[in-house]
Amino acid sequence: MKIRDIQTAVIEANYDWTIVKVITEEDIVGYGECFLAPGLTRTIQELKPILIGQDGRNIDRICRLLREAGVAAGSVGGIIFNAVAGIETALWDAYAKWLDVPLFRLFGGAFRTRIRIYADCHASESLSSLSSICTPRIPWWMSDTGETVHFREIHMRAHGGLSEEAKELPDPMAYAERAKRVKGMGYTALKFDVDIPNPYMRDEFNRCLDNREIDLIASLVKEVRNAVGDDTDIAIDCHWRFSAESAIRLTEAVAPYKLLWLEDPVPPDSVEALKRVTDYSPVPIATGENHYTRQQFYALIVQGGVHIVSPDFQKTGLLEGKRIADIAETFTTPIAPHNISSPIGTLASAHLCASIPNFLVLEHHGIDVPFWEELALGWDGHIIRNGYIELSEEKPGIGIELNEEVAYRYRRKDEPFFDQT
Amino acid sequence: MKIRDIQTAVIEANYDWTIVKVITEEDIVGYGECFLAPGLTRTIQELKPILIGQDGRNIDRICRLLREAGVAAGSVGGIIFNAVAGIETALWDAYAKWLDVPLFRLFGGAFRTRIRIYADCHASESLSSLSSICTPRIPWWMSDTGETVHFREIHMRAHGGLSEEAKELPDPMAYAERAKRVKGMGYTALKFDVDIPNPYMRDEFNRCLDNREIDLIASLVKEVRNAVGDDTDIAIDCHWRFSAESAIRLTEAVAPYKLLWLEDPVPPDSVEALKRVTDYSPVPIATGENHYTRQQFYALIVQGGVHIVSPDFQKTGLLEGKRIADIAETFTTPIAPHNISSPIGTLASAHLCASIPNFLVLEHHGIDVPFWEELALGWDGHIIRNGYIELSEEKPGIGIELNEEVAYRYRRKDEPFFDQT
Repeated sequence: MKIRDIQTAVIEANYDWTIVKVITEEDIVGYGECFLAPGLTRTIQELKPILIGQDGRNIDRICRLLREAGVAAGSVGGIIFNAVAGIETALWDAYAKWLDVPLFRLFGGAFRTRIRIYADCHASESLSSLSSICTPRIPWWMSDTGETVHFREIHMRAHGGLSEEAKELPDPMAYAERAKRVKGMGYTALKFDVDIPNPYMRDEFNRCLDNREIDLIASLVKEVRNAVGDDTDIAIDCHWRFSAESAIRLTEAVAPYKLLWLEDPVPPDSVEALKRVTDYSPVPIATGENHYTRQQFYALIVQGGVHIVSPDFQKTGLLEGKRIADIAETFTTPIAPHNISSPIGTLASAHLCASIPNFLVLEHHGIDVPFWEELALGWDGHIIRNGYIELSEEKPGIGIELNEEVAYRYRRKDEPFFDQT
Repeated sequence: MKIRDIQTAVIEANYDWTIVKVITEEDIVGYGECFLAPGLTRTIQELKPILIGQDGRNIDRICRLLREAGVAAGSVGGIIFNAVAGIETALWDAYAKWLDVPLFRLFGGAFRTRIRIYADCHASESLSSLSSICTPRIPWWMSDTGETVHFREIHMRAHGGLSEEAKELPDPMAYAERAKRVKGMGYTALKFDVDIPNPYMRDEFNRCLDNREIDLIASLVKEVRNAVGDDTDIAIDCHWRFSAESAIRLTEAVAPYKLLWLEDPVPPDSVEALKRVTDYSPVPIATGENHYTRQQFYALIVQGGVHIVSPDFQKTGLLEGKRIADIAETFTTPIAPHNISSPIGTLASAHLCASIPNFLVLEHHGIDVPFWEELALGWDGHIIRNGYIELSEEKPGIGIELNEEVAYRYRRKDEPFFDQT
């Protein structure tokens, strides 16, 4: 199974879904997905010469060589990991197809084939889209001009938020309505962002939450809980915005609403800050989407005392993702993988989740993307039904092919589209 | 001092010297250098829209916004840091020129203006050059064909080495000759790579050193010590290749030769592995070129017990580099910055070293690059004289301009060259 070619394409959705396509000398095609990053496909292109002609079955060896090739690009994290993750998944998909087995067979087999999914929600129904540098944009296929419209602002206190939005108070009932609607789609777990632009923010950089902000967030969570009742799990995401003391005050305020977890309270840099929060929080704390290696997750679990780990397999890669899950399982820590992918990354993640005993729930971040499901070829019916993905014992690899015609229709125009440049 | 433009160029030297040029609305030009990486200049290009029009004097704020913009690209390390480091240095250079002060004035002033430099040496006199993915190459301006010649091999046991080279034993006398020659250039400290391809290697991936390899390395170090005498410091570099137990055996074998330090014995991922080595090593251990943030250096120092820290300011950036030095100083840990730069990155590093009380010695990795010094405009005489850089109180910014004519002559041809694409 020698590698004949590696190609990339980027789909301009709510994020830049970055797809890697591996073609072997036997004409087997494997697909993988990378977590987005600026310059990412150029990085993959520069790695390509050491991949061509390699035996694509020695996947772990190839990943180690790629990381060594990328040592100047970062040996503890960063774009090189995103790049390798997509290449790795494409190799797994190709090899599983070669063997004609579903991917979960290659990770020790399944503990379950019905994978529980949670929906990431926003307060509004409209698509929120971020560029490769996490600035808000209107994708070209949605804009009036037919060109991508960029809002070149980074706001340190709000994920993809604009200063303009901070002038108005968010409406708790909009959150409640949204929660009810998504619950109606069959999901048993929902997640909301709580790093929301609001008029009470006093400083963009000091990470401190005003008491009025904490009350505001608690009121949103309360309305969501009231809307969905007790049979639906709710998680909230802080996008690593807050100081440890602010985060602790926030956990106390939302404790009555029995959250599944509170995610990323503090910046990913300091395991000591995380530990301070996990020591005092009455709410389970999840973190992990900004970390890459088993050693980093070991530190999060053993030193940081995190309650739930949430790695993103489009950053860690699948095999390192399995190792991270194994370390978590060693300490009875559940794993709830972060995922903002197209069906390619989502199904690859779902296969790995099948093989992980301590798997809790997998993210789906595409409910507002009108063509999310259209990108998949070869699946029978809806991919996510009543909040679950049911993996087939029959379909080889990740279980789908990419519908390249649909992908082309929503491509990022300044990026190569596989063999078309 | 609003930012009007950000441009890049890559010089194909022993590494890809990646230069960032900032131009302000007052036509002040600042230069900075990034640590190389695949896809790097594309990453910078994608970051550019949020930089244009910003007040270039709020440097720390800009860096924080850029890192947040790059959070998808890696918040604990990687290419985004390399990119931001070059942009940051260019802003410092521009701002110091605007104020008409040497750069070290902006970091609290100088403890010294005479900066001690050590020379990175190879056993041979010829230029060893690595591509953006750390594979060996012959630069186009050295090759017979006029095109870059690439050797697409990653060897896990040798920095830029080829399997072919492992068939022959290295010659200790070549190391001794080389050491004598470089000492003759005036340097008071030398560094040699000891992760050398050799016939005794039993496995490429298990990180274990055969006893014969340890004897071989010790014999090289012995000859170097004999050649240079006791008045010259010697450091050795392991490029994070070895297991902790192998590294400990190696430190014991080279202990008689009174090394300045042994660098990067174990992979950068595990602070526990580092601690095992520092606990037992009779030789001072240095590490840091694969780390980015003050939190990571805090862990290396406090948990890992590292004796000397060696961050690369073309990865960490200058201000974070200063903070790393401050943390090191808190624990009386000396700092010996890693540096493989052109004169741009080297002088920026030298200015920061001037302002750091616990500074030990700064790397120079360009003694084999025939045009290293030619790249600098506006310096009087040699930049490095008798193993020191003497910073001027008079010259603003980093003290030189880039000679763009020379840079163009040795450019990487598939990269933009500033405003020419």
